[in-house]
Amino acid sequence: MKSYIETHKERFFEELFSILRIPSVSSLEKHKPDMQRCAERLVELLVEAGADEAAVYPTSGHPVVFGQKLVDPSLPTVLVYGHYDVQPVDPIELWHSDPFEPEIRDGAIYARGANDDKGQLFMHIKAFEFLVREGGLKHNVKFILEGEEEIGSPSLAAWAKENKERLAADIILVSDTTMISEAVPSINCGMRGLSYVEVKVTGPNKDLHSGHYGGAVANPINVLCDMISSLIDKDGHITVKGFYDDVVELSSEDRAKLSRAPFDIDEYKEFLDIKEVKGEAGYSTLERTGIRPCLDVNGIWGGYIGQGAKTVLPSVAHAKISMRLVPNQDSETITRLFSEHFNAIAPDYVKVEVTPHHGGDGFLIPISSPAYKAAEKAMTEVYGIEPVPSRGGGSIPILADLQRILGIDPLLMGFGLERDTIHSPNESYLLKQLFAGMEAIALFYRYY
Amino acid sequence: MKSYIETHKERFFEELFSILRIPSVSSLEKHKPDMQRCAERLVELLVEAGADEAAVYPTSGHPVVFGQKLVDPSLPTVLVYGHYDVQPVDPIELWHSDPFEPEIRDGAIYARGANDDKGQLFMHIKAFEFLVREGGLKHNVKFILEGEEEIGSPSLAAWAKENKERLAADIILVSDTTMISEAVPSINCGMRGLSYVEVKVTGPNKDLHSGHYGGAVANPINVLCDMISSLIDKDGHITVKGFYDDVVELSSEDRAKLSRAPFDIDEYKEFLDIKEVKGEAGYSTLERTGIRPCLDVNGIWGGYIGQGAKTVLPSVAHAKISMRLVPNQDSETITRLFSEHFNAIAPDYVKVEVTPHHGGDGFLIPISSPAYKAAEKAMTEVYGIEPVPSRGGGSIPILADLQRILGIDPLLMGFGLERDTIHSPNESYLLKQLFAGMEAIALFYRYY
Repeated sequence: MKSYIETHKERFFEELFSILRIPSVSSLEKHKPDMQRCAERLVELLVEAGADEAAVYPTSGHPVVFGQKLVDPSLPTVLVYGHYDVQPVDPIELWHSDPFEPEIRDGAIYARGANDDKGQLFMHIKAFEFLVREGGLKHNVKFILEGEEEIGSPSLAAWAKENKERLAADIILVSDTTMISEAVPSINCGMRGLSYVEVKVTGPNKDLHSGHYGGAVANPINVLCDMISSLIDKDGHITVKGFYDDVVELSSEDRAKLSRAPFDIDEYKEFLDIKEVKGEAGYSTLERTGIRPCLDVNGIWGGYIGQGAKTVLPSVAHAKISMRLVPNQDSETITRLFSEHFNAIAPDYVKVEVTPHHGGDGFLIPISSPAYKAAEKAMTEVYGIEPVPSRGGGSIPILADLQRILGIDPLLMGFGLERDTIHSPNESYLLKQLFAGMEAIALFYRYY
Repeated sequence: MKSYIETHKERFFEELFSILRIPSVSSLEKHKPDMQRCAERLVELLVEAGADEAAVYPTSGHPVVFGQKLVDPSLPTVLVYGHYDVQPVDPIELWHSDPFEPEIRDGAIYARGANDDKGQLFMHIKAFEFLVREGGLKHNVKFILEGEEEIGSPSLAAWAKENKERLAADIILVSDTTMISEAVPSINCGMRGLSYVEVKVTGPNKDLHSGHYGGAVANPINVLCDMISSLIDKDGHITVKGFYDDVVELSSEDRAKLSRAPFDIDEYKEFLDIKEVKGEAGYSTLERTGIRPCLDVNGIWGGYIGQGAKTVLPSVAHAKISMRLVPNQDSETITRLFSEHFNAIAPDYVKVEVTPHHGGDGFLIPISSPAYKAAEKAMTEVYGIEPVPSRGGGSIPILADLQRILGIDPLLMGFGLERDTIHSPNESYLLKQLFAGMEAIALFYRYY
């Protein structure tokens, strides 16, 4: 595939940039037309790459793109999953270039979605094109590209249920994760699940003058801080009642295997410019993101947040809180437990509301499976080192759903790197990862 | 004055509305020209009311208005203090009418500044006009109207120092506070001071994907919540080291005197729609706002606060925190103690910054003073009941400064009511309070 990439590189950039330029932010209503445009552009790219058929399918939310090339029913079938929606770009002022006008700087593409997931799904389209045109495709290949991954895939599960036949395959192949480092390729063999809620704490029924009422009336921001603070104890354990009930403790053997992944805590701290890491007592940093659940406030707001000072005792305070879950924890159960707990700990002097956003379960992939073995071989060939099996801290909740609905395991060959700062300003994707990914994917088909 | 009001009511409204229409929000840079316009309009109103001279004086911040009528140097001199700046109007969507297009509804004027302090300072201009034109003015009257009260009066103290002669008087008369209730007139005999800071907590040097890092890296929002939560203990005591060192405990006799103020806790809770009040153990609600210091978060923000869900582990979190102080607590000392404490409790895994906004000391006024007695007599005549001496929970830091610089006690005859919701949406001022205030002020001059 190397020389194919060399020959077609400029066209590849043009094609990838054409989808990066579309601001397909799924969480913002105003980008609805961009979702449709992006889906249509992907259909064009799939057909140009060699798909026999490809189309945009409406759902109750943003549309899905499905395309396929069926070579021979007796051959194995690969279902490629990707998502064309992206995260919002705030804080926009921290971007060094327009998030929707991709730029190549220092060997990387800078744009929202450069990695997550437009860049990574594009590798699959190009590996497929190479196999169709030059490699002799020996698989049936299907693509399912959704527009709602960043908002929890509210529509894809239903669409998948209605289109079970169409999606039938032997493996779900996904590139939407990171490798451990540039020098240490890895394959994700498990992902955390997610429970995401929004909470609202109401004190007095109107904003008050903090001088007239301060000290006598509960301030909902202070109360929200108290409540959030109480959710994690001093050992880093989450205090939500029943939260750990379904968490399976890993054997010391399994923990030893995972700990083989090279990891330099000093580099990690330097990369983040922090003096100390922080997490659950008794677990390493990799374990804290790989095999343990956690709770984070993703956003908080209340009172006066403009320039200068305002002496207000506000009526309400809000927070967005998410919990990363490990396999066996059920997202809906955790959301319910959180809601019960948060209501139970609310003091008399406030009212609280908990609204679930999206969620999803975690999952595990057997390392012994033929697909994992094929990916391992492919990556070893490209990187010259055997990839490490890792556990991803992030969540792709829909993959657990697809696994359940379709009865197919997902395999996560991700080529992102921490440096790509996905979900943050200046998201990027290294060109060498983009091209190495294409090669590894093409080789996967050879060995699968 | 009653019949004078009846005769000139419509003109009074026109004049008051002309200043209410100017959006003189001192904390927002974009309103700078409005500050000048508002000051100029006040000069016109002072001259029309009978001032011999009035002018706009530039300061390093927003201009001050000074005007006077000197009748006879042997007569007592009253210095009226007021402020023409107003609070921001956010959340604007909760206003039922344009905050800068005053409307009379249900016997009240609705507008930002209707009470605080344009409406209340206007009463003084009209009482002065009445005395000049019909009552036979027996005092020298000076007006000092500033445009920076809502941002802590950063420029007025310096201006007052340079203009000590010009401001020489026997009493500072102020209407910028509330009465206990519509039926219970009161005169403030003490105000709390203020220390106001902004804090910033920085974790990792960039926003992170909460899936990849959650559980392993300290989240600055969670840490900020922990830190804020630790600032007040379970008994409602502020934990900042040295915070209470200069607080003078009131004698049980003084506490008994203050507790005579009528107060209905059930009405209070109903007005605020809260099940329970909350405050420092061992003190009543009135004591908690009158004689005890407190700490409130006035604003908090961090992470993703837009629509929907974003799985971000943010780099920074912010809060605006203010402390109300009681007499003897020094605002600058408290700000320093807070800053030291906040830095001391910051865990290793974050960096913190504390930036002081504005502050000011509290003060007390002797109930035995001739000015207090005159105000008491005037209010008794207007309301038919003797006013209660009260302690104001709010802060007018500049009054403590003026008291110190000029050596003159301030007397606070405020006619606002809790229902006016100053600093909040739908600020209003009852017409009957506007007119009763004019009458009481005119009578004050008779008895002083």
